[in-house]
Amino acid sequence: MGGDHGPHVTVPSAVEYALDDPEIDVILVGIPAAIEAELHALNKPLGTRIRMHAASEVVGMDEPPALALRNKKDSSMRVAINLVKSGEAQACISAGNTGALLATSRFVLKTIPGIDRPALAVVLPTITGHTYILDLGANVNCTAEHLLQFGMMGATLVASVENKKSPSIGLLNIGEEDIKGNEVVKQAAELLRESGLNFYGNIEGDDIYKGTTDVVVCDGFVGNVALKTSEGVAQMLATFLRQEFKRNFLTRFAGLVALPVINAFKRRVDHRQYNGASLLGLRGIVIKSHGSADKQAFSAAIKRAAEEVRGGMLRHISEHIAELQHHVKKNKLNSVTAE
Amino acid sequence: MGGDHGPHVTVPSAVEYALDDPEIDVILVGIPAAIEAELHALNKPLGTRIRMHAASEVVGMDEPPALALRNKKDSSMRVAINLVKSGEAQACISAGNTGALLATSRFVLKTIPGIDRPALAVVLPTITGHTYILDLGANVNCTAEHLLQFGMMGATLVASVENKKSPSIGLLNIGEEDIKGNEVVKQAAELLRESGLNFYGNIEGDDIYKGTTDVVVCDGFVGNVALKTSEGVAQMLATFLRQEFKRNFLTRFAGLVALPVINAFKRRVDHRQYNGASLLGLRGIVIKSHGSADKQAFSAAIKRAAEEVRGGMLRHISEHIAELQHHVKKNKLNSVTAE
Repeated sequence: MGGDHGPHVTVPSAVEYALDDPEIDVILVGIPAAIEAELHALNKPLGTRIRMHAASEVVGMDEPPALALRNKKDSSMRVAINLVKSGEAQACISAGNTGALLATSRFVLKTIPGIDRPALAVVLPTITGHTYILDLGANVNCTAEHLLQFGMMGATLVASVENKKSPSIGLLNIGEEDIKGNEVVKQAAELLRESGLNFYGNIEGDDIYKGTTDVVVCDGFVGNVALKTSEGVAQMLATFLRQEFKRNFLTRFAGLVALPVINAFKRRVDHRQYNGASLLGLRGIVIKSHGSADKQAFSAAIKRAAEEVRGGMLRHISEHIAELQHHVKKNKLNSVTAE
Repeated sequence: MGGDHGPHVTVPSAVEYALDDPEIDVILVGIPAAIEAELHALNKPLGTRIRMHAASEVVGMDEPPALALRNKKDSSMRVAINLVKSGEAQACISAGNTGALLATSRFVLKTIPGIDRPALAVVLPTITGHTYILDLGANVNCTAEHLLQFGMMGATLVASVENKKSPSIGLLNIGEEDIKGNEVVKQAAELLRESGLNFYGNIEGDDIYKGTTDVVVCDGFVGNVALKTSEGVAQMLATFLRQEFKRNFLTRFAGLVALPVINAFKRRVDHRQYNGASLLGLRGIVIKSHGSADKQAFSAAIKRAAEEVRGGMLRHISEHIAELQHHVKKNKLNSVTAE
């Protein structure tokens, strides 16, 4: 039900996705009348592949997460996450209130053993392809161990959905040298180096978009600022480019000639194709779509969920966290033996 | 002597600047033979307006700051900063090793009373004009008081060089609401709110480039990541645009037609015009130029120094910090009286 546009975007997007991908069945969760109205408009009856699950409440976009968690036990968000917990659904996709989705997912699904906190991960375009960055705001105060867990989860996500054997991990810092950064980052670098993961080392902000590593690890404060700053730069550059093409008759003509190129460029950097942040570390797959997502963007978020289910991501994270803990224990034993 | 290109860039840039701006005299500090060779090539003799001050050593770009500070007492960097301390120069501009410049400036010049730590500030373009952001990496661990001081220094910088009466200050956070962010940021928001400064409130990463506030305050870790990430996004978008225009014969033709527009766009976002980070909070004006600056970029850094000197920035910071301390004391007294 959520998102800025409500079921008017999510229902047609989900229905179309299900029609395109025969492996995926859709359960539409929310106020029945609202969902039925959308289905009626689409002329799509409910069936086995497109089902509905009623919920009587909706979490507001600005509602405090703690209140939503406490008071709205029958919200579409809560009911959808319950379906993941019961195994009736293999993933939940929501365009609703991020804080409420995080709090509710964590409360209902719990974290995977060995993971302290869930993290938000997204895909970003790079000069050479794309990269995964986490955390993006779920955790504003992180320890070195949290950053290590983010690295492991990010690497597992990439391995699962991209079928990449040993994804490289970069630690976002303010310089490449080991001595750079604050204490948490320095300790995290040590933990990552000893983790058995494919740790590239420290990277800087520009490395995100150079595609230096498959995974970029940072705390949620830094990640959120980096992401929003990126959006700001892109918007500013787009505005400037538009202004320059609209300056006078000649530049407008040039803009007309260059239009197919500009459009190809726009398609390439269209952020809708990157919509869908994964909540990693939970005992279930939950994808957060941007609140303002349109049909195409919401469809990208559903695709992300489908890829994580097909890639067996949950199982892989559980396995890898066990391996990691084993590795860390062995390392500790070794260092004891060496003393 | 510093920077990636050495005196081959800095000497001609400084000489040309002095010729363009009759109020500014230049003291070239460094190895005499190297400077004289550049002046000879320019066919500019030394005189009263372009002087030379010998230094026998040079700090390497990768030299550990502590070592440079301890061992190179006659480096061009140290000697130039000494000239600021003695009053012979009113500002020092360096394209050299950032860490060494920070450490040496702080050691030689000391901070202004009431300022705990110097901060690095730069100007960035925005959709509506430009904004000043600090800190950019001088301080990776900041307290709320440091962020308050950054706000005051940033506002004073803008007031001094832009002649703006009460510049607005935004606190970089991961949401606009007061409850967002980590403890340090929340406390800093309270301090800024009670400071008597024109505090706008929390802003997000995209607000930097929207030009929401005149000053953006953040700790050095976050600021450095935001700045480098911005560079990365801009480079990626430029690469994509270039690639789209080079795709085939037709797109190349479109590129040719659009070239004047693209060039106007490039000039508008040319980072060279924004070169020059101010080291704020010291008892002297020090400007850090990008190491890879060319003549035009280095000239922008000199201009920044000239503007700070002309705007009386040092005096203003001292005055404002005294006012701020007075204001904070009065507020504390008031709250005591109210109890």
